[in-house]
Amino acid sequence: MQNQNNKSSKIVGKQSIIFTNPPEILSGSSVAGKKEGEGPLGSFFDQVEEDPMFGGTTWEDAESRLMKRAAEIAIEKAGLKNDDIRFLIGGDLLGQLIATSFGIVDLQIPLFGVYGACSTMGESMALGAILVDGGYADKVLALTSSHFAGAEKQFRFPLGYGNQRPMASSWTVTGSGAVVIGNSNNNSKNEQTNEENPSIIIKGITVGKIVDYGLKDSMNMGACMAPAAYNTISQNLKDLGILPNHYDRIITGDLGYVGKDILIDLLKQDGYDISSNHMDCGIEIFDKESQDTHSGGSGCGCSAITLTGYIFQKMRKHEWSRVLFVPTGALLSQVSFNEGNSVPGIAHAIILEVC
Amino acid sequence: MQNQNNKSSKIVGKQSIIFTNPPEILSGSSVAGKKEGEGPLGSFFDQVEEDPMFGGTTWEDAESRLMKRAAEIAIEKAGLKNDDIRFLIGGDLLGQLIATSFGIVDLQIPLFGVYGACSTMGESMALGAILVDGGYADKVLALTSSHFAGAEKQFRFPLGYGNQRPMASSWTVTGSGAVVIGNSNNNSKNEQTNEENPSIIIKGITVGKIVDYGLKDSMNMGACMAPAAYNTISQNLKDLGILPNHYDRIITGDLGYVGKDILIDLLKQDGYDISSNHMDCGIEIFDKESQDTHSGGSGCGCSAITLTGYIFQKMRKHEWSRVLFVPTGALLSQVSFNEGNSVPGIAHAIILEVC
Repeated sequence: MQNQNNKSSKIVGKQSIIFTNPPEILSGSSVAGKKEGEGPLGSFFDQVEEDPMFGGTTWEDAESRLMKRAAEIAIEKAGLKNDDIRFLIGGDLLGQLIATSFGIVDLQIPLFGVYGACSTMGESMALGAILVDGGYADKVLALTSSHFAGAEKQFRFPLGYGNQRPMASSWTVTGSGAVVIGNSNNNSKNEQTNEENPSIIIKGITVGKIVDYGLKDSMNMGACMAPAAYNTISQNLKDLGILPNHYDRIITGDLGYVGKDILIDLLKQDGYDISSNHMDCGIEIFDKESQDTHSGGSGCGCSAITLTGYIFQKMRKHEWSRVLFVPTGALLSQVSFNEGNSVPGIAHAIILEVC
Repeated sequence: MQNQNNKSSKIVGKQSIIFTNPPEILSGSSVAGKKEGEGPLGSFFDQVEEDPMFGGTTWEDAESRLMKRAAEIAIEKAGLKNDDIRFLIGGDLLGQLIATSFGIVDLQIPLFGVYGACSTMGESMALGAILVDGGYADKVLALTSSHFAGAEKQFRFPLGYGNQRPMASSWTVTGSGAVVIGNSNNNSKNEQTNEENPSIIIKGITVGKIVDYGLKDSMNMGACMAPAAYNTISQNLKDLGILPNHYDRIITGDLGYVGKDILIDLLKQDGYDISSNHMDCGIEIFDKESQDTHSGGSGCGCSAITLTGYIFQKMRKHEWSRVLFVPTGALLSQVSFNEGNSVPGIAHAIILEVC
C-alpha cells in the first residue's frame, strides 16, 4: 500500500483506493415500478408506484419523475434539506442523460453527470465517497435510475412493436436509488446509530476498466458484462491481497443467470471461488418462475434499488458485515450496435462495511 | 472560506473548491479536423487531420480514433506511458459515450465516464484535479471530443439531408483535447519548468448547476447555455469574493456570438462587467468572414482544443497569468427535443494560474 503525500487516502494496487476517513451512508432511498414491487424484494422498497408513467407524459418524463422522487426521499430520510447537499453525482441510461438532467434540475444542486451504463451507481458512489473523504464536500447525493419502457424504446424496440425476447435477455428494472454519503465524523445521523442501527461505511473502491471480449449480442448483456465484473472483482482481491471469503457477499449488478455462470467460471481461472458468497441483483429482484424475465433484471436501477432497499437492510441487521458491491455496465448504444460493434463492459466496486 | 477537517482542500462558498495542493497541467494535446486547422487557431494544434473519417469507417468510429490519438499524444508529451496514468476521466456528446468507450478501450486505464454535454472538459478536469489534489492518483488524463458529422447526425440532420442552418446555429468542432494532470510537488515535468516554460496549475474549480430558462431551440445553443455560464461565473466571483478583473481572461466554451452577448448582459445584472476580458472559444476557433459558421464553433472539442492548443500557450508565454476556463454545455438530446422539452444548460469553471 502506497501512502500519498497528504495522508488523506491510500492508493492501493492498480485500481483501488482505501479511504482513511471512510465516508458513511447517511441514507438510501428506493423507488420501484409495479413489477419490481411484485417481486421478491418488493417489501424492501420505500415506494412502489403503480403508474408506469409516474404521473408524466412520456417514458423519459416518467424516469425523470422517478429519479426526482428517489432524490427527495433520500434527502428527507437523512434529515437534510436540498441545501445541505454539496454535490449531486448521477446519471442514467438515456442518451445525454436526460432522465437525470430533467429529473434533478429543480433540486438546484451542483452536478457531476456520470455515465457507466448499469455500473452508474458504482461510479457515482465512488466519486461521491472521494468527494467526502477528501474534504471536498460534507454531504453528497449519488443516484441513478432506469425505466423498462424507456430503455426498450432506446436500445431495442418500442413496446408497441411486441417483439419476442430471447432467453438470454434481461428485463430493465423500473426504479431509482439514491444514497446520501457524508462524513462519518461529523453528521447528525451518526449520533443516532447504535448496535441496532449500525453505520455502513464506504471503506474503499476499485475503479473499473473497459473490458471488451468482442461479444455483439444486445440481447445477452450478462455475457457482455461478465468479463468486466471478473476484471474488477479479481483486481479488488489482488489489490487488497485478500480472498473472496473476506466478504460476506460479493454482489454484482445485473449479470443475470447467464452472466453469473460466466463470472464464476472466469474467476476460477485466477484461483478465486466466489460460488458460495456471490449474489446478483438481477437474479434477486424478479422471481424466476412467476415473473418470467428470462435471464433476470438489469438497468442502472436494478443494482441501485437492490442496494438501497435490500442490501443496506441486511447490513444494518448485521447479517452481512462486509459487502463488495459491483454494479456492472454494458456500454451499448443503438448506434454502435447498428454499426456492428461489440458491447464492451465496465464494472466499479464499492467496499461496504458495517461499523 | 470554510476549512475541512483533513486540511486537504477548502470548500469555498456555495459551489467552489480551492485546492491546497494545486495539481499541475503536465501536458495538453489537441487534434483537430481540416476546417478547424484552416481557422485562426490552426497553427496551435498538435495535429490537423485532413481525413474527416480519421481512417475509420463511420463518423462515430472517426471520433473514437480522434480521441485515442489525443490521449496518446498527451501521454507522450508528458513523457509518460499508459501505465503511469491512474485514472482516465472523459466523455463525449454521443449517446452512451460511444466515442469514449471505443476510443480509449485499448489504453486499459480505469475510467470515470462523465457527461456534461459541451462542458465535459470542465467536468473531467474538475474531477481529475480532485483526484490528484486529494492524493487518489499521481497522474490522471482528462479528455473529451466531438465530431461535426457525428453530432449533426445525432442531434439534427444527417449531412446528406443538406439542411439549411439558421444564423443562430453553431458548428460542432471536429477535435479532441486531452490533459495530463499531476501532482505539482512530485513529477518529472515539473523539473523542466522555468520562466520560459512555466507551470500551469489548477488553483480551484466551481461546479455548475443545471440552469433552465425554458429555451427550446436546438439551433440556438448559445442562448440555451448562456444562463448556465452566467450562473457559474457569477457564483465563482461571489464564492471567491473577487471581481472579474481578477482574471486576465474569463473564457467560455462555445456560446458563440449570440450567447456571448446574453452572458455579458446577464452578468451586468449582478454588477459584473466582463466585456473587456471575456473570450469565447466558439468565437475564436473559426473565422467569422471566411469560414461561415454563423454563430461560431461548439461541441466538447471546441473548448478542449482551444484550451490545450491556444490558451495553454498564451499562459506559458506569460501573456495571461490567471484564466477562468468555463466550458458550457447544452443538455440536449434528440429524444427530449422531439418531445418538446427545453434545452437546459450547465457550465463548470476551472481556475488556471501560471506559477
